[in-house]
Amino acid sequence: MKNNRIYNFNPGPAALPLPVLEEIRDSFLNFAGSGMSVTEISHRSKWFEDVLNDAIVRTRRILKLDERFHVLFIQGGASLQFCMIPMNFLGQGQSADYVNTGTWSTKAIKEVKIQGKSVKTVASSEDKEFSYIPKNIAFNSDAAYVHITSNNTVRGTQWASFPDTKGIPLIADMSSDMMSRRFDASPFGLIYAGAQKNIGPAGVCMVIVRDDMLKQVPDNIPTMLKYTTFSEKNSLYNTPPCFAIYTVQLVLKWLEETVGGLDKMEEINRKKGELIYACIDGSGFYRGTAAPDSRSLMNVTFRMSDEDLEKKFIKEATENGFGGLKGHRSVGGCRASIYNASGIEAVKALVDFMKTFEKKNG
Amino acid sequence: MKNNRIYNFNPGPAALPLPVLEEIRDSFLNFAGSGMSVTEISHRSKWFEDVLNDAIVRTRRILKLDERFHVLFIQGGASLQFCMIPMNFLGQGQSADYVNTGTWSTKAIKEVKIQGKSVKTVASSEDKEFSYIPKNIAFNSDAAYVHITSNNTVRGTQWASFPDTKGIPLIADMSSDMMSRRFDASPFGLIYAGAQKNIGPAGVCMVIVRDDMLKQVPDNIPTMLKYTTFSEKNSLYNTPPCFAIYTVQLVLKWLEETVGGLDKMEEINRKKGELIYACIDGSGFYRGTAAPDSRSLMNVTFRMSDEDLEKKFIKEATENGFGGLKGHRSVGGCRASIYNASGIEAVKALVDFMKTFEKKNG
Repeated sequence: MKNNRIYNFNPGPAALPLPVLEEIRDSFLNFAGSGMSVTEISHRSKWFEDVLNDAIVRTRRILKLDERFHVLFIQGGASLQFCMIPMNFLGQGQSADYVNTGTWSTKAIKEVKIQGKSVKTVASSEDKEFSYIPKNIAFNSDAAYVHITSNNTVRGTQWASFPDTKGIPLIADMSSDMMSRRFDASPFGLIYAGAQKNIGPAGVCMVIVRDDMLKQVPDNIPTMLKYTTFSEKNSLYNTPPCFAIYTVQLVLKWLEETVGGLDKMEEINRKKGELIYACIDGSGFYRGTAAPDSRSLMNVTFRMSDEDLEKKFIKEATENGFGGLKGHRSVGGCRASIYNASGIEAVKALVDFMKTFEKKNG
Repeated sequence: MKNNRIYNFNPGPAALPLPVLEEIRDSFLNFAGSGMSVTEISHRSKWFEDVLNDAIVRTRRILKLDERFHVLFIQGGASLQFCMIPMNFLGQGQSADYVNTGTWSTKAIKEVKIQGKSVKTVASSEDKEFSYIPKNIAFNSDAAYVHITSNNTVRGTQWASFPDTKGIPLIADMSSDMMSRRFDASPFGLIYAGAQKNIGPAGVCMVIVRDDMLKQVPDNIPTMLKYTTFSEKNSLYNTPPCFAIYTVQLVLKWLEETVGGLDKMEEINRKKGELIYACIDGSGFYRGTAAPDSRSLMNVTFRMSDEDLEKKFIKEATENGFGGLKGHRSVGGCRASIYNASGIEAVKALVDFMKTFEKKNG
C-alpha cells in the first residue's frame, strides 16, 4: 500500500481515513495560514473556534439532530462517562435500568454501584458468553434512564435496532459504532462515543445530550463532571483536547464530502459486513462467535478449530500486511474491526487472504 | 521564519519545539515502521508502550525523581485535578491549606468547597490584584496537604522558591512552569501539569504522585477519578490520549538531547527573562505588573500608559509576526508567554520590536 501502510483492523485506536492523515501532515507546521501548528494555536482563537463549530455542525447534520440536542467534547473516554452519567442523572431514591451485553456494559454498571446508587440489570446475555443482544426486555416504568451499549467490541455483537423504552430516556455508549449507520436520535437522552474507533483519535469523547437531561444536573457535583459545564461553555470551560477535536472534524468532513454522507457510509459498512460474514459462513473453517441476528458490522469475531491455527493465522496475516486481527485479550480468537475508515478494498483483501489461508490449512 | 511560522507567545496551547513538530509530521503516515499513523496504533502495542515508558523514564531522569514517585498521564486538564485532589486526599474531618495566588488557585479552592470539604485559605495576594507571591505563611500543622500554584499564567507571578511546609505534603499545580527549572521534588505529595504550556499539546495532564499519597486513596470513588487506577495500570486502565503522550515524549527527548537537560533549560529561561524584564524596566514606557521578587520567567505581564496604545502594540506585533501577546481576557494589558519552546532568538526579536515600538510611540 501507499507509504508502506498496512491494512489496519485494530479495534481502537483504529484506522483513520488516509486523506485525513495527509491533511493533518501537510498543514502540521502551519495551520490555516496561522503560522502555527494546530497543536500551538489558542483554543480561544478564531482558528480553533471554526474547527470546533464545524465539528458540531457536521455532527448535527449527519445525525439529523434537532434543536434539543447539544454536542459536547469531553476528555476521559467512555470510561469517565460511566461515572458521570449516574452522577448527573440519578438522584436520591431513583434507579436506572442497564442492559448488560459485555465488558463495557459491566463496567458502566459497576460505576453506578460505586456511587452507592440503585441500578437494575434488566437484561443480560452473560448466560451465553455475551454472544447475543437480549430481546423483549421489560423495563421498569420508573427508571430514571435505560443504558445500553450499542456495539460490543469485545464480543462482536451490535443492537440491530434500539429497544422501545416507552419514553424513558435512552442512554447509549456508541463508542464503537457512532456514525456508522443511521438511527433516530429522538428517544436518546444522551449518546456518548470515545472517538478512537469510528470518528477520530484517542483523547476525546463525543457526547450528545438532550435539553431535558441537562435540567436534571445537580449543582453540587464537581465542575468538570457536570454536563452543564460543557453545554454552557461550548466545551471550552477549560482547554479542550484541540488536536483530537480537529481530527474528529476532518473525519466528519471526510464522511460528508468524500464518502457522501451517512446513508452511503451505512451502505458501504453493510457491504463490508456481508463480504466477511459470507466468507465465514461459507467456509466451515472459520466460525463466527456472535449469534447471527446480533452480529456486529463493526467488529467481526471468529474462531478456528484450534488456538494454534489461530496463532498461525494472525502471524501470517501480520506478515502479509493485515494488522490488529487478534481477538480481545479477555476472550482470545480473531477479530476484524472494520470501522468506517477500513475501506471495502481492505475487507476484500482480507477475505482473499482468509480464503487462501483456508485452502492451505483447511 | 521557516515555513512562514510566527514567533508564538501564546499562553497555552503554546509554541512547541520545531524539531518535535517536524518529527511528528515526517512520521505521521507511518510511525516507527508500523505501517500506521501514531494515531492509529493500539495503546496496548509495543510501539505505544515504548512511547509511554520513554516519557516516564525521561520525566524521572529530568526531575531526579526517586523510587517513591509515580508518573501518570490523566485526561481532563488541571481543572479535573482540582476536584480529584480533595476527592482522593481529603478525608472526613480533615482540612487542607490552600494559597490563593490568582485565577487557578481560586478555582482549585472552589472545587474543595463543592465537595463540602474543609479548606483554609492560609494566604492570598488578592489584596493587590494577585501581583505577588505571599511570604512567611503560617500553615496549619494538621492540614492534610498544602496546595499552591507554582506559576500564575494570568498575573505573571511565580514562586521563586517553594515554602517549607514542615513535612505536610505539598501539592502544586505546575501547569505553566513544569520542566522549566530545577526543583527538589521530595516535599511534594503530588505535582500536576496540563501539558499545553511547557511539555506538549492540550489533552493530557502529567501527574507525579508519591507512594504515601496513594495509600490514602479511598475505595468508594469513581474508578476514573482514583489516582490508584492510573498508578496500578501504568495509565493504561482505559485508552489514554496517545497522540498527546507521544508529543510529550518528543518534547522531553528534545529537552534532554537537543537543549541539553534541565540545567541548561533553566539557564536559557533565566536569560530570556532577564532580556525582556530589562527591556521593560529600562523603558519608562512599559510597566511590569508583577512585584519584582514575584515575577514569572514564563509569563511576562506588562502594561503601557493607555489601552489604545496596548491595542496598537498588539496589532503591530501581530502584523510583524509576533503572536499571542494579548493579556488574559480577565485582566487586559499585554503578556508574553516565553515557555521552553520560545527560544532566545524569539525573545530577542520581541525585545527589538518592543524597543522600536517604544521609539515610535514613546
